[in-house]
Amino acid sequence: MRLSELSERSGVSTATIKYYLRERLLPPGRAVTATQAEYDESHLRRLRLVRALIQVGRLPVATTREVLRAVDDDSLDHHTRLGAAVWAIPHIANAAPALTEETEPARQIVDTLLELADWTFGRQMGPLNPSYRMLVTAVMELLKLEYPCDADHLLPYAKLATGVAVTEIDELEALGTPSQQVEAAVAMTVLYEPVLLSLRRMAQAEESSRRFSET
Amino acid sequence: MRLSELSERSGVSTATIKYYLRERLLPPGRAVTATQAEYDESHLRRLRLVRALIQVGRLPVATTREVLRAVDDDSLDHHTRLGAAVWAIPHIANAAPALTEETEPARQIVDTLLELADWTFGRQMGPLNPSYRMLVTAVMELLKLEYPCDADHLLPYAKLATGVAVTEIDELEALGTPSQQVEAAVAMTVLYEPVLLSLRRMAQAEESSRRFSET
Repeated sequence: MRLSELSERSGVSTATIKYYLRERLLPPGRAVTATQAEYDESHLRRLRLVRALIQVGRLPVATTREVLRAVDDDSLDHHTRLGAAVWAIPHIANAAPALTEETEPARQIVDTLLELADWTFGRQMGPLNPSYRMLVTAVMELLKLEYPCDADHLLPYAKLATGVAVTEIDELEALGTPSQQVEAAVAMTVLYEPVLLSLRRMAQAEESSRRFSET
Repeated sequence: MRLSELSERSGVSTATIKYYLRERLLPPGRAVTATQAEYDESHLRRLRLVRALIQVGRLPVATTREVLRAVDDDSLDHHTRLGAAVWAIPHIANAAPALTEETEPARQIVDTLLELADWTFGRQMGPLNPSYRMLVTAVMELLKLEYPCDADHLLPYAKLATGVAVTEIDELEALGTPSQQVEAAVAMTVLYEPVLLSLRRMAQAEESSRRFSET
């Protein structure tokens, strides 16, 4: 398809597509004349992914490029590639911070949690995983503010997260090629975070209404 | 206690506490001399809440003040007060946007989901609830990018969210006064969002490792 059709089918303006091409977020099309190029379904898919990262995930262009580099690295085995791609996505509103002495008590809680939840991969990776560092930081804040957050307390959350993850990976496996799976994993990570957070708040309101409402 | 002890016990500098007092995020202490005031446990608790909102939730001072106003409004019944306080907390990285014609298909999906999940309070409130608007926007992005997101697909997430919410409200009920419950609800909403998101990503990695890892 031509640029104009790519724009129509993706809902992304031709100016924005050209910008993504210049920024190497989108691979060039196949040149047909000196001024025209042909694009295919893989461009359309990539364009959707770029939109998810930039518009919903609010990633800067440079970070988006890094995530895409991991997505495209087919020298890795499938699990490593999935991991690398998802790890390259920063957590909303927070770069995963470094661990210091100050974070040690929080780290012990997280390590106990991983043991209780029997997350062997998580235990192997430890602070290499930005989500681990993010979790340690969140637990540290809870400790500092003296809110409940021991490992027993966090375990139900870990179990619920496993429930979500199993559903999500089932869905991924139903998709086409490994490359498409990695692309979808990255997009779904970003696109489902607001879904999860808004549903949690709505479920709280629901439960609060059931228990406390006077009407 | 004096300002210096409040600072020591909370880990917040006296300069920052004075700033919060000036900004009316913290109620004034009881004046004992012209230049000294006494603070009590309620100041300590409020200070922890303000830190959670500003430092972890990254709320601006004006928004924090609004959240606290809802927390302190004891003219409301308990459920309404909980709701008002939590609704005043913006969703991370995103103000809940207005609904337009464009969001209509997404709204239908969300309404079907609320019916399937039997969330009667959510159905009553509809777009009055910022989390509802946030969810509609997230679904609209998924639709636009052609990722799976019909109501059946979202239902497992809603069920998991209910599991989390029941645990959380159980915990709230174990706390002291209604005012303390509202304060804790607001703090936990903010402090547990990064916990939930990091655990989801870790659980994904775990499940991916189980299924795809070559070692």
